[in-house]
Amino acid sequence: MLVVMSHAATASEIAGVVDTIRDMGYEAREIPGKQRTAIGLIGNDGKVDSGRLEALPGVLQVIHVTQPYKQVSREWRPEPTVIALPNGTRIGGADTVLMAGPCSVESEAQILTAAHAVRAAGATVLRGGAFKPRTSPYAFQGLGLDGLKLLAEARAETGLAIVTEAMESAMVDLVAEYADIIQIGARNMQNYPLLRRAGQTGKPVLIKRGMAATIKELLLSAEYVLAEGNDQVILCERGVRGFDENTRNILDIAAVPVIHSLSHLPIIVDPSHGTGVRNKVLPMALAAVAAGADGLMIEVHPDPDHALSDGAQSLWPDQFRDLADQVRHVAAAVGRSIAALPPQPLP
Amino acid sequence: MLVVMSHAATASEIAGVVDTIRDMGYEAREIPGKQRTAIGLIGNDGKVDSGRLEALPGVLQVIHVTQPYKQVSREWRPEPTVIALPNGTRIGGADTVLMAGPCSVESEAQILTAAHAVRAAGATVLRGGAFKPRTSPYAFQGLGLDGLKLLAEARAETGLAIVTEAMESAMVDLVAEYADIIQIGARNMQNYPLLRRAGQTGKPVLIKRGMAATIKELLLSAEYVLAEGNDQVILCERGVRGFDENTRNILDIAAVPVIHSLSHLPIIVDPSHGTGVRNKVLPMALAAVAAGADGLMIEVHPDPDHALSDGAQSLWPDQFRDLADQVRHVAAAVGRSIAALPPQPLP
Amino acid sequence: MLVVMSHAATASEIAGVVDTIRDMGYEAREIPGKQRTAIGLIGNDGKVDSGRLEALPGVLQVIHVTQPYKQVSREWRPEPTVIALPNGTRIGGADTVLMAGPCSVESEAQILTAAHAVRAAGATVLRGGAFKPRTSPYAFQGLGLDGLKLLAEARAETGLAIVTEAMESAMVDLVAEYADIIQIGARNMQNYPLLRRAGQTGKPVLIKRGMAATIKELLLSAEYVLAEGNDQVILCERGVRGFDENTRNILDIAAVPVIHSLSHLPIIVDPSHGTGVRNKVLPMALAAVAAGADGLMIEVHPDPDHALSDGAQSLWPDQFRDLADQVRHVAAAVGRSIAALPPQPLP
Amino acid sequence: MLVVMSHAATASEIAGVVDTIRDMGYEAREIPGKQRTAIGLIGNDGKVDSGRLEALPGVLQVIHVTQPYKQVSREWRPEPTVIALPNGTRIGGADTVLMAGPCSVESEAQILTAAHAVRAAGATVLRGGAFKPRTSPYAFQGLGLDGLKLLAEARAETGLAIVTEAMESAMVDLVAEYADIIQIGARNMQNYPLLRRAGQTGKPVLIKRGMAATIKELLLSAEYVLAEGNDQVILCERGVRGFDENTRNILDIAAVPVIHSLSHLPIIVDPSHGTGVRNKVLPMALAAVAAGADGLMIEVHPDPDHALSDGAQSLWPDQFRDLADQVRHVAAAVGRSIAALPPQPLP
Repeated sequence: MLVVMSHAATASEIAGVVDTIRDMGYEAREIPGKQRTAIGLIGNDGKVDSGRLEALPGVLQVIHVTQPYKQVSREWRPEPTVIALPNGTRIGGADTVLMAGPCSVESEAQILTAAHAVRAAGATVLRGGAFKPRTSPYAFQGLGLDGLKLLAEARAETGLAIVTEAMESAMVDLVAEYADIIQIGARNMQNYPLLRRAGQTGKPVLIKRGMAATIKELLLSAEYVLAEGNDQVILCERGVRGFDENTRNILDIAAVPVIHSLSHLPIIVDPSHGTGVRNKVLPMALAAVAAGADGLMIEVHPDPDHALSDGAQSLWPDQFRDLADQVRHVAAAVGRSIAALPPQPLP
Repeated sequence: MLVVMSHAATASEIAGVVDTIRDMGYEAREIPGKQRTAIGLIGNDGKVDSGRLEALPGVLQVIHVTQPYKQVSREWRPEPTVIALPNGTRIGGADTVLMAGPCSVESEAQILTAAHAVRAAGATVLRGGAFKPRTSPYAFQGLGLDGLKLLAEARAETGLAIVTEAMESAMVDLVAEYADIIQIGARNMQNYPLLRRAGQTGKPVLIKRGMAATIKELLLSAEYVLAEGNDQVILCERGVRGFDENTRNILDIAAVPVIHSLSHLPIIVDPSHGTGVRNKVLPMALAAVAAGADGLMIEVHPDPDHALSDGAQSLWPDQFRDLADQVRHVAAAVGRSIAALPPQPLP
Repeated sequence: MLVVMSHAATASEIAGVVDTIRDMGYEAREIPGKQRTAIGLIGNDGKVDSGRLEALPGVLQVIHVTQPYKQVSREWRPEPTVIALPNGTRIGGADTVLMAGPCSVESEAQILTAAHAVRAAGATVLRGGAFKPRTSPYAFQGLGLDGLKLLAEARAETGLAIVTEAMESAMVDLVAEYADIIQIGARNMQNYPLLRRAGQTGKPVLIKRGMAATIKELLLSAEYVLAEGNDQVILCERGVRGFDENTRNILDIAAVPVIHSLSHLPIIVDPSHGTGVRNKVLPMALAAVAAGADGLMIEVHPDPDHALSDGAQSLWPDQFRDLADQVRHVAAAVGRSIAALPPQPLP
Repeated sequence: MLVVMSHAATASEIAGVVDTIRDMGYEAREIPGKQRTAIGLIGNDGKVDSGRLEALPGVLQVIHVTQPYKQVSREWRPEPTVIALPNGTRIGGADTVLMAGPCSVESEAQILTAAHAVRAAGATVLRGGAFKPRTSPYAFQGLGLDGLKLLAEARAETGLAIVTEAMESAMVDLVAEYADIIQIGARNMQNYPLLRRAGQTGKPVLIKRGMAATIKELLLSAEYVLAEGNDQVILCERGVRGFDENTRNILDIAAVPVIHSLSHLPIIVDPSHGTGVRNKVLPMALAAVAAGADGLMIEVHPDPDHALSDGAQSLWPDQFRDLADQVRHVAAAVGRSIAALPPQPLP
């Protein structure tokens, strides 16, 4: 951490900063410059609250040199984290993983049809919401426990792993009982009790980037899970708030290589929420894989016209099959393959 | 709701949209145009899921005419909602209300000193976090229950009302036992279980606008509380994610008149989080009051240099006294007064 | 255009809107709704100034149904525009085009070395700034006319076509004399005299998307060129202002499929400015091609460590060769090829 | 400038950075840390191109300590710049200045009516566009030279000073002949030939902040004018691109105190463009003055319903009179007065 003193700072103001740094238990080193003096704080363990320094007289600016996260950082663990699911899918390794399914679980017929369709096309993980965070209190809020049971039934029938969302810490144990991956939604990215509780289960946790979260904030949310001793974390880029009306969000594909530089955790991309428009899902899925995404999360519904949520961005099953085929080609072009389950035996 | 068909839409595609609208239980009306046909959906009760229509063949765009919220809307309740606190403070009426105090409750001495100081300067509500959502898992997380008890002690000593944050639904009852206003933080603006639970207490709920939340989304979050039968909601603008490094956020003062147009709920402003810089708090507090804010929420710490959180944006007590004086002048200039408690008897 | 009247609008306010629409020379059609009346404006030719209607009493909202642009729209010209350069490169057709070269022309040796290197790797267009818009008045501003002459020399030696920027209308003729494509920089996207003048040359014009321009605004800027009778326009996505510090901008790859839906004009991507970080250029170049970009614009410098501008985002020549190879694979995976010049004869 | 080396940087990489800094003519100073080494560049004169350093092997990050602007900085000229117009108006001093008038000059009757109305209400500067940058090529583009002559006529009749926009450098001399203040529009904030040429006239230059410009970029644009030896620069906050549909832009009122901290130049606010909605202009005008703005720029039209541009955000003359009255009260509350011309003699 570097404390830059203003041009007009007095010697006693400089001494005040040095004393405060020492009082906080760190070493201080003066760096005189042509126009201003700066003071280095040495020994920063990530717990320094810079507010105390920013507020001292004569201070122009406090510059953070050390990153505030630790365990998620690639600087401290160079090899990538690979998450192995019970059905053999590995996330973060050589394969790119397809997660697909409807926005919400709506009925047994719907989820089983969707599950068989996405499995046939090449997905290995089934997504589907049992508890749904909806912007309006009057919109469909999910089937709850019944939805979880239907997901488990779909897993039993197809061999797909299950990813589904927990919306609050009190719900985590229930979700963990049914899910292979506990999803933390974008709106809850900074719900810290939820992150801690999910971390304590030891199960894989998928964290979606918040609407306007920086990558640093996303990594700090992951740090909450790792701080509970659980390194099974998957990050997910799903678009940030933008200003153009043609897409629901702006999908920040560069987050993929940025996170691969900063962290050892796998990063997947959700082009369905990232664009909000069905015919933009395919090109953005291909873009994500070309940029090195470790997986995709795609909304697929057997009958999008009658979906209870997110119909406009859900693919028809045959569109998903096309997507999976094209993704396979692009993955091959960048030296990746697509994770696969063994062909399903005829019933 | 208006469904605009593309230029090349066929008669059967138009008929498909009309049929779907009727199938959903609404009336459909065709509006032929020079270049495109549009179809009006009449009778929208706010529960229409436009996704189903957007996904139909031939549809270019679905335009929302009806607002998705209801009970928070000024169109349906023209007179302003005024929230009366036990200590006589009224929020949303003629007075502008000063809420002030430290970011976190740190100790008995700190919170009592802060409470006496802000009360002497003219605040009627004491803010202070007992449970703190912190971006880093390694930062100070608050005193918890002990913090709530210290707030209650400060209330008993000073007569100030208490606003403090609940971070998850499981915590709401505990917070409601001590607080006069339950605060929902910006990171939890779309934590729907938390909003519902806070609504069920019947206590006043203060909802901070999320980092990149539209005003519509903020109003829909308030709608969650009203949907539980609780109309005691205070909205709070605290800055949205911006791109300029000189302030932590960009404080969207225009949200004040916008919300006054759209809703009957009171709207206050938090210039401390909105700017993140101590010497910008005063001018932005004055700006907020000039724009019609129903209150201010200001961070004040007896010794900001040693604050455990947000020191750089906290005012010294004498700075807050100056702020209260200047706010009083600006409020008068726009025809408002500042809420006050009776002078405190000497001990 | 749809004028939505407020809930409480009177019959005479409704009549006022109808009269105004007729007074403006259009047809008006009332659409009564359950909660509000709307009035359709029929016959909109793209010249309606909605401000006049928004300002009438009783009006809640004016909704634009017709797009404000015309000649750039795919709705009115379904087949893609293909731009043929003198050296045989075709932009907007089956091929993806590589444009590459240094940020600024710095010297004869530098530009010739760069030109030979990018041509050898597979580029067909050489980029290089002779006139440079720099944020600081004290930064290197380009070689001017000498730079243009060096670009022409590089073309003569290599057969590459030249794209270079004109910064104001007075400069356009000079630039047009040397360039095969006149570039309009992001900062000048709404410099309308410049756009008109560039349009009048009849030469291909490359328009970079402004820092925070919507896609509609970008298309309207292109409309300025087409309105001069020049349809040789290439659009370029180069990142919009974001809030994350890890990249200079946020590269909006979804602009590629969005523009392909809305317009017949080709759209290329500049991942060098879009990320500002050398090791993010490759993954984002691959992403752009996977999403369907008609070309890439890449900064390459023979010696980035000594570049006079944008060194940190410029590739070394061998990095560009790798990029071209990988782009070729991804292009093939999505059914595109890379434009090529005939092999250069030995000197 | 501080060059932070990565954790794993080798001694020879560190030496490489030191050598490069010296090669660039500056002093280098190593600052060993617990986790990483940093290297200070001492003697930065604002001309260092950090790209060259960022690109060196082993470099993690380059941190800018020195601001890239000089002459506009308050650090180097502590006393505020006050701009005196020929009619006695002083911008940047104790007074807050009202600039008002229509978006475009449309006719003699319109501009004279507007001028008399705003003068009567208390404005001292008349705004009005003769050359109009319009997003669509098909919208009204202004009266050109005839518009300038009408503005001069309005000045002769009323004593108001004139501010009007120049859209390109070739237009500057003509505009300077008629205007008291040359306006640079938001779309041209980084049109450097235009800024230089405006600087060379020696006339006051008003620079509007670009749609997504940082304050540093705005100050650097002003630096272009000062670099021509002209310190008569007025900055104008007019809203930045936001994501909420209720206002056209998000008016960044905090830019007022931020610019007052960083620069000696006056800063005014344009709430008409900043909100785009007539009934939000008043509260935001009051907010701006409360925050310390040195002036306001307000759109006023004698008949907004028939305005050729920006009708929806233009005030009626009597609304402007109310605004001026209320502004006067708020200005007084913060210790400012409103600039005034002597009462106009009866004709």
